[in-house]
Formats: sequence, structure tokens, C-alpha cells
Amino acid sequence: MNSAPVNAASPVRAIDVIRKKRDGRELSRLEIEFLVQGYTRGEIPDYQVAAWLMAGVLRGFTRAETAVLTDAMLRSGEVLDLSEFSPTKVDKHSTGGVGDKTSLVLAPVVAAGGLLVPMVSGRGLGHTGGTLDKLGSISGFNVNLSAPEFRRVLRGCGCCMIGQTAEIAPADRKLYALRDVTGTVESPFLICASIMSKKLAEGIDCLLLDVKAGSGAFMKKESDAAFLAELMVETGERMGKQVVALITDMDQPLGMKVGNALEVEEVLEILHGEGPSDLRELCIELAAWMFHIGGKGSSLEEGRKTAIQMIDSGCGLAKFREMVQLQGGDLSMIDDPAKLPRAKHKVDAISPENGYVSAIACEDVGTACVILGGGREKKEDTVDPAVGVVLHKKVGDPVSVHEPLATIHFNSEARGSRAKQLVQESYHIAGAPQAEKRQLVHRVITKTGGAN
Amino acid sequence: MNSAPVNAASPVRAIDVIRKKRDGRELSRLEIEFLVQGYTRGEIPDYQVAAWLMAGVLRGFTRAETAVLTDAMLRSGEVLDLSEFSPTKVDKHSTGGVGDKTSLVLAPVVAAGGLLVPMVSGRGLGHTGGTLDKLGSISGFNVNLSAPEFRRVLRGCGCCMIGQTAEIAPADRKLYALRDVTGTVESPFLICASIMSKKLAEGIDCLLLDVKAGSGAFMKKESDAAFLAELMVETGERMGKQVVALITDMDQPLGMKVGNALEVEEVLEILHGEGPSDLRELCIELAAWMFHIGGKGSSLEEGRKTAIQMIDSGCGLAKFREMVQLQGGDLSMIDDPAKLPRAKHKVDAISPENGYVSAIACEDVGTACVILGGGREKKEDTVDPAVGVVLHKKVGDPVSVHEPLATIHFNSEARGSRAKQLVQESYHIAGAPQAEKRQLVHRVITKTGGAN
Repeated sequence: MNSAPVNAASPVRAIDVIRKKRDGRELSRLEIEFLVQGYTRGEIPDYQVAAWLMAGVLRGFTRAETAVLTDAMLRSGEVLDLSEFSPTKVDKHSTGGVGDKTSLVLAPVVAAGGLLVPMVSGRGLGHTGGTLDKLGSISGFNVNLSAPEFRRVLRGCGCCMIGQTAEIAPADRKLYALRDVTGTVESPFLICASIMSKKLAEGIDCLLLDVKAGSGAFMKKESDAAFLAELMVETGERMGKQVVALITDMDQPLGMKVGNALEVEEVLEILHGEGPSDLRELCIELAAWMFHIGGKGSSLEEGRKTAIQMIDSGCGLAKFREMVQLQGGDLSMIDDPAKLPRAKHKVDAISPENGYVSAIACEDVGTACVILGGGREKKEDTVDPAVGVVLHKKVGDPVSVHEPLATIHFNSEARGSRAKQLVQESYHIAGAPQAEKRQLVHRVITKTGGAN
Repeated sequence: MNSAPVNAASPVRAIDVIRKKRDGRELSRLEIEFLVQGYTRGEIPDYQVAAWLMAGVLRGFTRAETAVLTDAMLRSGEVLDLSEFSPTKVDKHSTGGVGDKTSLVLAPVVAAGGLLVPMVSGRGLGHTGGTLDKLGSISGFNVNLSAPEFRRVLRGCGCCMIGQTAEIAPADRKLYALRDVTGTVESPFLICASIMSKKLAEGIDCLLLDVKAGSGAFMKKESDAAFLAELMVETGERMGKQVVALITDMDQPLGMKVGNALEVEEVLEILHGEGPSDLRELCIELAAWMFHIGGKGSSLEEGRKTAIQMIDSGCGLAKFREMVQLQGGDLSMIDDPAKLPRAKHKVDAISPENGYVSAIACEDVGTACVILGGGREKKEDTVDPAVGVVLHKKVGDPVSVHEPLATIHFNSEARGSRAKQLVQESYHIAGAPQAEKRQLVHRVITKTGGAN
């Protein structure tokens, strides 16, 4: 893409760009860059950008506009140059779910398989957890690294997991804060530009997108998830990156554990070749795709074999230990998960009847975790690493009356009691087992318009 | 309408009101009042209101929402109580045109006929003139009266013409300023609420709306003008006022003179029973409707007779003199219009050929007046009362080659030359006369959904 700078004597006016989008017309590169750069520099006021964002939410953006917007946001800050590293650089991004701790498995497993994984993650918001909060339950683990420190860790172990720095896509940070208070978050075009601008600023070659669909995802409908996925794949392509998106199931929590330290514990189970089958299966599938798009092996099937091998050989766990050590984390917690933060109290959510679990209201389980203090309702909230929910039953499992469905780990009696009720109500019990099991991976979107 | 105050402990949040309008749902009275009051008090920031306005422009508002919005804006400030005056209180509002000086005729003529006319007018913006700017060409005429002074003039002569005070509809002033810079002016619902909130704050019983349609109006299409007119009539009705709207022609300037002092001169011609026939006809028609809705006489025809009588008897002129005197204006200018401000230079725009005037690009004539200094491009601009354009030919008139089409009155050579060219180009000359003449009054909208 042409990246000519905006002419300083540009005749573009913010009011005209707003009106043009309001009237449903396609904006030029010059107009989009004018707005993004002007806003980032503080030259265009919040109220004009707010009106423009709302016009964009209601009128939509073309694919070309979305790519230009992503590019302008990406170039508002520093774009990491990792060309000093010879392996292919690959990352994964998830749109957020409940119990989704795959990033912590994938970074070391894919690095163990020979690719470079420079991973920039986010904190949890709403009912979904965030990778940085999970890492935060490992004492000393530093996610706020400078660019040189980031490189040092990458050089040391081939993967590194950090938070977004102030230098990466400042336009996105400013725009996101404004979208959050002006009802302009819910636009696939703006979501795409926000995600892709941050991810592509990491200096990666390939990106795997895990777009969640279902009751525990931000996109409940698969068609919405697919629209966003295709948009991100096309935007990545337009920007010269290889991007593949998987639409994966989020109709029930992933794995059995929800909560920061509890999820690290489950990650360690997986890295020991154990853990819940759905989580293991999805980790293998995502790692396989990362190997595949990163050019490791000639087929997806080969990618699956490499992933299984890296997990079952203990290479992934060894890589995880290296990364924790290089990022200042307490290795004793990795070697003995009983040392991870623990909640003071536990209480069981109990089945009220005999039958089979027919559904779990997945968002409610995530919300229960937020109520316990394990997530944040506002950006400023701090999280309690120890609390959470451990499921004993998943969809399709038989249950007896009074049998525990899940165990609530809590530090405050009042919160524990509210969370217990919410989790108990989130389980739907039916008389007969479900006819068919939902697939973990619903669709794969490998290129524009092409889904298989 | 119920006007219960917003509960201080209201659970309404600005973000939810924005989202609701974004999603196309109807807002409640509580939600609209929360937004208007919160914004007026400075509690809701510009950027949230800007997003809400854009959502409103693109999603529209229901009739009920428009009435509630109007009411909330009206009650954001002082609502004049003129119940001490026994005559019916009536006003007229025009959506703005070129050469439209009817207000200056109507206020004294309708007051002479026995109704009370408390008129709050605006300044010109864009290519259209403003009543206050026209009055400003009469030395000493004070349009910035306090409420007690306004009452004193009304008591003295039955009419008074002032500008919007800081106390009237402050929410509109703040919202209008924000709409102006966020591309959210062009919404019939917001235009309706803006006009009606100001007009109904005058303490009137009835309102006549002159909604202009054509090349010199803000609404070029008659269907747009009719939509706005019906919206304003229904909004007025919902607020318990009698409102009638006339859709009138603005495809060529009204009368022969455009420019502040020039228009006052033409007003005096009309009040002397002379002047251009189109202007006289429209003044009579508008006055007739004001008498009719104000309950003077039993029919519109009787209103027409009263209007003609008030003009031709000189009663309207006498009333105008009284008003000018009470508002501190220089009566010698009224008695001898030659004393009104005069431009230093004149130049003629000349017909390039023989034929008939087939059209006049009306907005361009207005723009020529702005170029001369007689209007304002920005709110802060000051106007030159003396400059303007005097037309010699209107649509349908025969012209000979080199015959003057119009005379430009100017004080700056450069401006005069640009205006002359624009006016000359605004005339379209055809070989044959036009088949049919456009009606001055296109439609009358007397009640919701009913047009005749």
C-alpha cells in the first residue's frame, strides 16, 4: 500500500469527512489518514471523531476503507522490525471467550516447534478473561517490557508475551477509549481495524485469528463472527500478511477452569500432556494452523503432528519455563502449581435434578468470575488472581440430583454466594442426552470469500 | 404534555441513550430530557452528544421523540409568559430565503389588525439574509431588549422584533453550535426541534411557518420542505399550539431587492401600498393566515381583506413607525428611505442576448450579496448594511441584449466585480417565454398529514 504522508497544506476538513461518511460515501486514503493522524496528534477534537465514528458504525466501511484505516492506525505508532530474527514470525489473536487460555499453551508450543512468537496481548474486559491477567497470577512475571527487553526474551526462547506498549498504535488506544463511551464499539469494521492495527504492529509475518462464536463470545451469532473473520483476513491480505481465521465454539467454557491462576494451572496440565480434551484438541488445532501458515511442514496434518509432539515430549513445557524465567516469573509456581494463588474458600454449585447437561449459559459463567473479582467491569479495576470457577460437568455429561456441577473458588462470602447462584442457574439440565455434539472448530477462513 | 422533572437519582446513562438511538429504537421522555438537561448543564460531554446526534441524523426520530426533544429544549431556558396581554399572540417563522423581508411587513400589519406579534428573529447565515441584519440598517434600532423592555414595546404598539436572548432555549444554542461542527445540521427532526423550541419559548398561541422550497432555499426539493413542514405542524400540535405551514416558492429572489438597507427600502414600498407584486402578494397571504389562525375574522378570505386594508390604509406603516420609535430606531430613515445606508458604487449586470428570463439561480444571488459583505459566511462576521443587488428582471420577463438585468450596490471594487459576474451568470435567458408561472404558495399544511 502506498504510504505517502498527508500533505501539510491539505485542503481536507474534518467536517467534510464526517459529512461524506454520514452520506454513505467511500472515504479516500487522504481523508482517513487526515482524521486518524489529526486525532492522534490532538488536532481534531473528540466530538468530531465521535460523530464520524457513529456515522461509520451506521454506514459501514468498504474493505478498502477498512484496510486504509487499519494501516493509518498501525502507522500512528511504532511498528516493530523483527527482521533480525530468521524464523517466521507468527501470532494468534482470539476475540475473547470464557476459559480461553490457549495463548499460554500456543506461544511456547509453537516456539518449541521452531517459529518465532512475538505475542502482544490484552487484559480482560467484560465477561471474558485476558491473557495478561492470567500471566499476572505468576508472581514476578513482567508483561511490561521495553522493546529491547522484548527482543532479548525472543532471542532467548523464541516467544515472549507482553502487553500493548504506549508506542504501539496510539491511535487505536485513543479511538478505543472514545468508542467505549460513545456507543461505537460494535462495528465489525472498527473492531477489525483495532485488532489488526495492533497485531500487525508486532512485526509478524502471519497471524492466526481465533474468532469465537456462541453464548460466551462477544459475537453470539456465527454469521457475525464469520463476517468479522473474513474482514480481518481480507484486511491482513491487503496489508501483505498471511492471515487465517478459525471460527471456534464458545457456547460453553473452554476446558474446565475459569479464573486466572486456575487457568494457568490448566495450561500446565495441557503442557504435561494432560488436561481436558476440548482444550487440548483446540490447542493442537490452533498450533497446527500456526505451523501451517508459518511454513513449518507441508500440510496441516503435519502441523498437528508437530503440535502433539511438542506437547507430549515436554518441549512446550520446557519452553514455557524458559519464557517465565526470562520474564522474571516465579518458576516454583510452574513446577508446583499448588503454589499458584489460591482462594480461601470453595463452595459447590449443585444439580437440582437427574438428567444431562443440555446447555451452559457461557457468558454467565464468565460474569460469575467477574463477580468473584477475577475479571474487571471497568478498565481501572484490579483482579483477584485466585478466584474462579472449576467446572465438573460439560454439555452432554450425565448428572445426578445433588451432584456438584462446579466449584466456586472465592475470597468474599457475598461474592461467592452470588457467583454460586449464577453458575448454578447457568446449567440447563434435560431428561435425555443431546443428539449431537458441537464441533470445536466451526469454519476455517483461509482467504477472502473462501471458507472451508 | 407531562413535564415531570428528571429524577436526580435517575438510572439513565448517556451511553445507553446513545446505543438505543444507534440501534434505531424510540427514546423515552426520561432519556431525552436526561440528555438535553445534562448537556445544557455541562454534565454530558460534547463527544457523547455528538455521537447521539449523528445516530439521530441517520436513524431519525419518531414524532413523539421530536415533540419531547422540542419540549426539553424549550424548557432548558425561560419561557415567556405573555398572558398579561389579551390579544391572541401570533408569530411567523421562515426557513430562510433570498430577498425574504416579509417579517418586517407582517409584524406591524398583523399588529395593526389587532393581534399581538412578539417576534424573535435570527441573523443571516449562509446565502440567506436575516431579519436582525435588515433591522440593523436602521440606525439606533435595538434588537437586544431585555424581557421587561420587550413587554414595554409590545404594550406600546402590539409588535416587537428582537434577537434570541441568552435565556431562550440555551440547549438549542449549545446543540446548534455542536451540530454545526459535527455534520449533524441536516436532519428535519433536529431542525424542527431547533426552530420550534425557540419559537414556542416566545409565549405565543399560534405560529405560521413559511417553509421555503427551491433553488434559493435550504431545501431545494419540495418533498423535503413538505416533510419538515408537516413535522413542525405536528410537533406544534402535540405541544398544544396552533401551527400552519405554507410551502412557498424560493426559486427566484422574493421582490426586487436583496441586501439589508435595500430590503428595508422595499418593505417601506410595500407598507406604502406599492412595491413588487410577488412580495405584496406573499405578505398579504401570510398576514391573512396569521389573522386566520389568530382568530381574526371567520375565514381566510376575510384575513386577506384585513391584510390589504391594513396595508393600503397606511395603518401598517404607522405601526412600523411606532415600533421603530419604541425600539430606538431613527425615524427619519423610515420617513425618507434615501437616508438609509447607501453603497458608494453601482454597476449593472447586463443581458448577453435577446430573449426571456427562464430562471435565476437564486442561491447565487444570495451568495453575491454575501460576497459584497451584506451577509456572513461565519457567525462572527459583521455585515455591511448598504450593499446588495437590485433586480430589474424576474423569471418570465423579456430582455434585450445589453439591457441591465440587475444593479450591484458595492463598497469594494473587487467584491463588486465578483458579485456582478455571479449575478450575471445566475440569469438564464431563453428564446421563448416560459409556458407557466410558478405559484408563490405551493401548498398549505394545516394539520398533521393534511395538506391542501
